[in-house]
Amino acid sequence: VKAVIITIGDEILIGQTVDTNAAWIGEQLNRIGVQVEKNISIRDAHDAIHTAIDEAWEQAPLVIMTGGLGPTGDDITKQSLADYFNTALVFSEKVHQRVQAFLTKRGYSMNSNNKDQAMVPEACTVIDNPLGTAPVMKFEQNGRWLFSLPGVPFEMKEIMHKEILPRVKADFQLQPVKHKTIMTYGMPEAFLAEKLEKWEAGLPAQVSLAYLPSPKGIKIRLSVYENASEFDDKLKQAVSELKAIIPGNVFSDSETELERVLLENLKKYGLRLATAESCTGGRIASVLTSVPGSSDVFNGSIVAYQNAVKSKLLNVPEAVIAEYGAVSEPVVKYMAEGVMKQLNADAAIAVSGIAGPGGGSPDKPVGTTWIAIALKNKVEAQRFRFGSTRDVNILRAAYSGMFLLNSVVRETYEQ
Amino acid sequence: VKAVIITIGDEILIGQTVDTNAAWIGEQLNRIGVQVEKNISIRDAHDAIHTAIDEAWEQAPLVIMTGGLGPTGDDITKQSLADYFNTALVFSEKVHQRVQAFLTKRGYSMNSNNKDQAMVPEACTVIDNPLGTAPVMKFEQNGRWLFSLPGVPFEMKEIMHKEILPRVKADFQLQPVKHKTIMTYGMPEAFLAEKLEKWEAGLPAQVSLAYLPSPKGIKIRLSVYENASEFDDKLKQAVSELKAIIPGNVFSDSETELERVLLENLKKYGLRLATAESCTGGRIASVLTSVPGSSDVFNGSIVAYQNAVKSKLLNVPEAVIAEYGAVSEPVVKYMAEGVMKQLNADAAIAVSGIAGPGGGSPDKPVGTTWIAIALKNKVEAQRFRFGSTRDVNILRAAYSGMFLLNSVVRETYEQ
Repeated sequence: VKAVIITIGDEILIGQTVDTNAAWIGEQLNRIGVQVEKNISIRDAHDAIHTAIDEAWEQAPLVIMTGGLGPTGDDITKQSLADYFNTALVFSEKVHQRVQAFLTKRGYSMNSNNKDQAMVPEACTVIDNPLGTAPVMKFEQNGRWLFSLPGVPFEMKEIMHKEILPRVKADFQLQPVKHKTIMTYGMPEAFLAEKLEKWEAGLPAQVSLAYLPSPKGIKIRLSVYENASEFDDKLKQAVSELKAIIPGNVFSDSETELERVLLENLKKYGLRLATAESCTGGRIASVLTSVPGSSDVFNGSIVAYQNAVKSKLLNVPEAVIAEYGAVSEPVVKYMAEGVMKQLNADAAIAVSGIAGPGGGSPDKPVGTTWIAIALKNKVEAQRFRFGSTRDVNILRAAYSGMFLLNSVVRETYEQ
Repeated sequence: VKAVIITIGDEILIGQTVDTNAAWIGEQLNRIGVQVEKNISIRDAHDAIHTAIDEAWEQAPLVIMTGGLGPTGDDITKQSLADYFNTALVFSEKVHQRVQAFLTKRGYSMNSNNKDQAMVPEACTVIDNPLGTAPVMKFEQNGRWLFSLPGVPFEMKEIMHKEILPRVKADFQLQPVKHKTIMTYGMPEAFLAEKLEKWEAGLPAQVSLAYLPSPKGIKIRLSVYENASEFDDKLKQAVSELKAIIPGNVFSDSETELERVLLENLKKYGLRLATAESCTGGRIASVLTSVPGSSDVFNGSIVAYQNAVKSKLLNVPEAVIAEYGAVSEPVVKYMAEGVMKQLNADAAIAVSGIAGPGGGSPDKPVGTTWIAIALKNKVEAQRFRFGSTRDVNILRAAYSGMFLLNSVVRETYEQ
């Protein structure tokens, strides 16, 4: 089955918004075995929408469309779809009640713009939108489908997971697809590829391989698109061979993110965590607490952006900061021990670095970062040299810290 | 003048890469007065490339294409363009010498893949690529133009600036364009639209309006695409009228993000900031420290995920937590005062809430969040009711906290 993704919004075409919806939807469709032929981004304009649908359906029977469903005047997708399908907008009691309930729960009352949201094209099937007031619509014509979803990413994702993907899986006859994703950290792509060259050459021809690099690590994905069920054993074998080649770098073979793996391991061994963050500025704490249930393990963090805070709250001696500088091995070790004591934890991650763009020196250029790991009465530290981009440096420091602690916990307890 | 952007690459369609090239090119074209009609992303396949060019030229005389020009086997754009324009690939001595000079300078010698890069379609004009070995091509047909550029972002950007944009400006007769973006927070889209209905009706017909909502606030964008220079005064007037209608909700009329506006205001009035975060888990600290130079203003944060940390480090009396619960007005007020004192700051944001999915009760359902703002010797708190999605609740709590503090600072100092 082939699909085309259409994203609607002037803001995409003038470059004010980067279209992340198309990439996300493409990945989801690919996972269930739907091949995306094309992404089209267009303006909020009737002729553009109509032309895009024509072009899309010429190439694929499944069209996923996002955007232009808000309650304001510049959002015209609903009317445009009604025109395209020669149908009238009619009042839907069901949608009206849903919008009303949605607003009441949040303490708002309905206004005329919200009332308009209960008008939907007669020819469509309305699908539930659990997180917003915009209607989700499904149109069918000659065995071809078109779904129209709101463009707000978190609403769109929830609707895709709960409503769209299950329908597509059930109603198109999709060939089962198998993916196996192994999560690695700490080895750059070129080195990884070199190290895995032989292993790669030994994979069956039907198994395709992709490296998906990001500052959060490199995912190695094995995919089988045809007769997938016959490859279960081969995939399992490939994964265990891979883990034997780079045991220290694989942190998950079930596509679980590093922050979740770390929290699970800490919970398993009854360890409570605290972080002391300088250049990461709370990013580690923020990533960890984005995981539901993190409070089972995470006590909190001291974000010591100022040196005075490092001394006062983390007990880093001022003389040590003066002698070695805030970005140094002794300082991060003191930070890790200090936060573990202050927050009554069993394990700690401490980070101090120069994220940039300012603050670098010939001795400690931008990207220089020290990370310390404390576990019970053990403390160790490591220096990293990241790049020149502030955001990426912060992210790399945060994930390197979590990876290091996860490795130390495994070394200590997994014997 | 209208344009279509075509980006080529399998990795875009399976969601492995987010297409940032199209957004960047769109912004650049829009700035010089070219209206982008459509972005198309397609696979590395001849039929897909040919169909995309047909569709693009049907709607616009200018096509900018990126991707598929690398030296490896999956890059087929050059051959595909030669086929489309019924022309042969011929050896270009000029390109050969440029590639050779490029490689020599970097200490490499030419291999057969590089030699192939000197083969270019006879019908095209070759344009200089100062940063790479891939040829940049320009095709002309019946007054329509097609540029083919490499997809590597930094190469593409350099070529656009140095070669493509100057040619487009010189050879098409371009009209200047004007945009004005106003940033708002704290009012949902439907209510904003209702409040601005009259104002909107009073805008000149040539001024188009768009609402761009996100958990970080709603941007209101005014655009003029024709005779833009005549609308300077009208746009200025529209912006000041808008600010008069919702003075408390507009935090920027220069498209600056809330975190930057807050840091600028704090700096302007000589105030240093600290945050005490429970449900936001360090997100506010993380967002603020992602801004370069935030250390001028930001002292740090205490992420008190555990109640014990709230008592020990933020001096929230245990009896108050026991009586009112951790998510309550007195607790966030104590947190704000406590962190301000501990981190020696002049202003503080404190947040405690139930981000979900667990932890809710009939009395305090998921989404219930208390935020306190402390400024010098003043403390105030406000209750919010966000939704049911953890990530969005955290983001909304973080931005609501920053918005509240920014409002209090403005009220206090902007008289």
